[in-house]
Amino acid sequence: VRAVILSIGAELVSGLRLDTHAADISRALTAIGIEVARHETVDDGAGEIEAALRAAVAEADLVVATGGLGPTLDDCTREALAAAAGVPLDENAEAREHLVAWAKARGRTLSQSNFRQALLPRGAKTIPNPVGTALGIEARVGKALVFVMPGVPAEMARMLGEEVLPRLRRAAPGCATVIRTVRTYGAAESIVGEKLADLMAPKRRPHVGTAVHGGMIDVHIYATGAPEEIAPLLDADAAAVRRRLGDAVFGEGDERLEDAVAALLAKRRATIALAESCTGGLVAAKLVNVPGISEFLLEGVVCYANESKVRTVGVPEDVLRAHGAVSEPVARAMAEGIRARNRASVGLGVTGIAGPAGGTAEKPVGLVWFAVADQGGTASAKEILSGDRALIRERAANYALNMLRLMLMRQSFPG
Amino acid sequence: VRAVILSIGAELVSGLRLDTHAADISRALTAIGIEVARHETVDDGAGEIEAALRAAVAEADLVVATGGLGPTLDDCTREALAAAAGVPLDENAEAREHLVAWAKARGRTLSQSNFRQALLPRGAKTIPNPVGTALGIEARVGKALVFVMPGVPAEMARMLGEEVLPRLRRAAPGCATVIRTVRTYGAAESIVGEKLADLMAPKRRPHVGTAVHGGMIDVHIYATGAPEEIAPLLDADAAAVRRRLGDAVFGEGDERLEDAVAALLAKRRATIALAESCTGGLVAAKLVNVPGISEFLLEGVVCYANESKVRTVGVPEDVLRAHGAVSEPVARAMAEGIRARNRASVGLGVTGIAGPAGGTAEKPVGLVWFAVADQGGTASAKEILSGDRALIRERAANYALNMLRLMLMRQSFPG
Repeated sequence: VRAVILSIGAELVSGLRLDTHAADISRALTAIGIEVARHETVDDGAGEIEAALRAAVAEADLVVATGGLGPTLDDCTREALAAAAGVPLDENAEAREHLVAWAKARGRTLSQSNFRQALLPRGAKTIPNPVGTALGIEARVGKALVFVMPGVPAEMARMLGEEVLPRLRRAAPGCATVIRTVRTYGAAESIVGEKLADLMAPKRRPHVGTAVHGGMIDVHIYATGAPEEIAPLLDADAAAVRRRLGDAVFGEGDERLEDAVAALLAKRRATIALAESCTGGLVAAKLVNVPGISEFLLEGVVCYANESKVRTVGVPEDVLRAHGAVSEPVARAMAEGIRARNRASVGLGVTGIAGPAGGTAEKPVGLVWFAVADQGGTASAKEILSGDRALIRERAANYALNMLRLMLMRQSFPG
Repeated sequence: VRAVILSIGAELVSGLRLDTHAADISRALTAIGIEVARHETVDDGAGEIEAALRAAVAEADLVVATGGLGPTLDDCTREALAAAAGVPLDENAEAREHLVAWAKARGRTLSQSNFRQALLPRGAKTIPNPVGTALGIEARVGKALVFVMPGVPAEMARMLGEEVLPRLRRAAPGCATVIRTVRTYGAAESIVGEKLADLMAPKRRPHVGTAVHGGMIDVHIYATGAPEEIAPLLDADAAAVRRRLGDAVFGEGDERLEDAVAALLAKRRATIALAESCTGGLVAAKLVNVPGISEFLLEGVVCYANESKVRTVGVPEDVLRAHGAVSEPVARAMAEGIRARNRASVGLGVTGIAGPAGGTAEKPVGLVWFAVADQGGTASAKEILSGDRALIRERAANYALNMLRLMLMRQSFPG
């Protein structure tokens, strides 16, 4: 089954409201084995909606549309659907009763325009709406099955889950699209692409593809079929991806870098303390995202002023003077100082230039020094990160978390 | 000018990732008077992209597409654009140089697949990308002008703002939709609605509407027409909104609470130091979002462990023992202690229970104590915030920033 998803509304086309329905419906359809060919978002004029419906039913077996079912004159989806199907609009008795009962239960009176919501293309079926006035519509247009749901989020979500998906599942049982996501940090996209080239071949089953965001690369592995048939295929591919990408893999599914670090801290029974300059508390804020981290995170210091670096973190004043705040020796002294102060297993130091001002030829905007100290010594690394201030800080925080992750993976700590 | 917006990517069609680009681009185009006819989202196959491009250029004067410009084999937008335009792909010298320079600046070597990113449909122009390897493409296909940008959010945002919009503005000056946004914190939506009822009347010009997110209410004021005609209307409405909502207004447009706090710190020549427990560095991270804050933010301490509260922040041990970490006396001691330690004009203390565990009947999840200390004394406040762990922390950080803002507005500090 191939589906097209249609979102209807002036506020969506103009970007004033973000369309989250298309993605939600896509995931739901994909999960029951229906392939989504494309999404389209159109204005709420009857002509535009009719044209979009005609194009969609010509190419797809299933069209799922949202929006344009309200009582006001700019709600034209009923008219457009009837025109696309080449049938008249009739008043539907069930829909009229629903409206009357709805108003009665709330002590309201219905205006003439409300009864527009009782109109239905001839031959179409209604879909119940327990939380609003607009009933959904199920209609056959040409060879395609068309579902129309209201655009109001709470009404759409409930109608999709309780009515549309069950009707579709009954029509096509047993089939599902299952997705496994392997998350990586630190490998270049081109390298990942080369290492996984055979897995990523077009038309291969399972399908393997990559998506990049915030310096991380997610490898999505998915296939459609009977779940018990797909599971071993996905397991095999996930294992192959993990093997080939090695330490770059930090988790699966929704796992974040901070989750990996927190899990390793728990596993090692290790404690941590952070000294951050340019990231300004972002590493701490990310770690604190993880419930239960209070057992392992002892202290984080945003040592923005040099005095804070010296007094609270313990960076020697002469090191600061000799090398400047953004330097390898200062990053190392921050990591060692904050670790010693807290008697933590691990200390982190991050210092850099997030911009937009403050860069020089020698120390450009985006230069960041990282250091991780533990009982075995101190490791340091330098990166020149690109992007604006917010992006440089985000990337620096992720780099720091990944450095902690790799260090915690490789070492063991005394209880 | 009529535009079609095209989003390309398997992860978008399947709903794995939410497409925010189409809405962002729509708003930007609408703002410069370009009518957006529709959005379409397609899979990343070359055939699908080519078909979507052909349909779009047949009906629109302008097509803005995102995605499919990466180095891997599933990135086919270049091929599809060349096919739709009926021209071959050539290696572009400028694009090749960009790739080589990019790799060199980062000490990386390019693999063969990277050079796919140097291919361009014959006759097309490149669009600079200062923050990534994928150059954008500007091409003419039939009668339509086509812009293609990378799907990576930070790269798209910058290329849209710095290159695509200026090129379009030069091509079509004149009419525009202008939006003024007045941002508020701390007033309930129903109260805002009542105070602005006459301004929010339907069909009024300018249109005035509200949008709620993260505890803040934005008041959008907008109208379409000649910019010089609209500007005084918007000015008058913005002034009325500010007058009626008073201290709840913290900024306009993109201004955030942290920008308002930073501006007041600069105006007062005041310095600040932060002691955060449950917010875990989020207040610091937000303040560090503001360029130049290093002049005013002396130190932030994430005092998660009680030992850190005592030793680094200076909370007396008996206060901690008597009242517990989440209590008014501890919040006040944190604010006063971190202020004294740094000899700052202002000290902030935040301590609470972000959950999901750790709540009791007396101190439920969501309970947060806030304190702000300055030379005139210490103010404290309690909130019981709702939401999950991340939302409670976000709301607590915003509450703290707003408390700082109100305090800095009302008081003056010695230089």
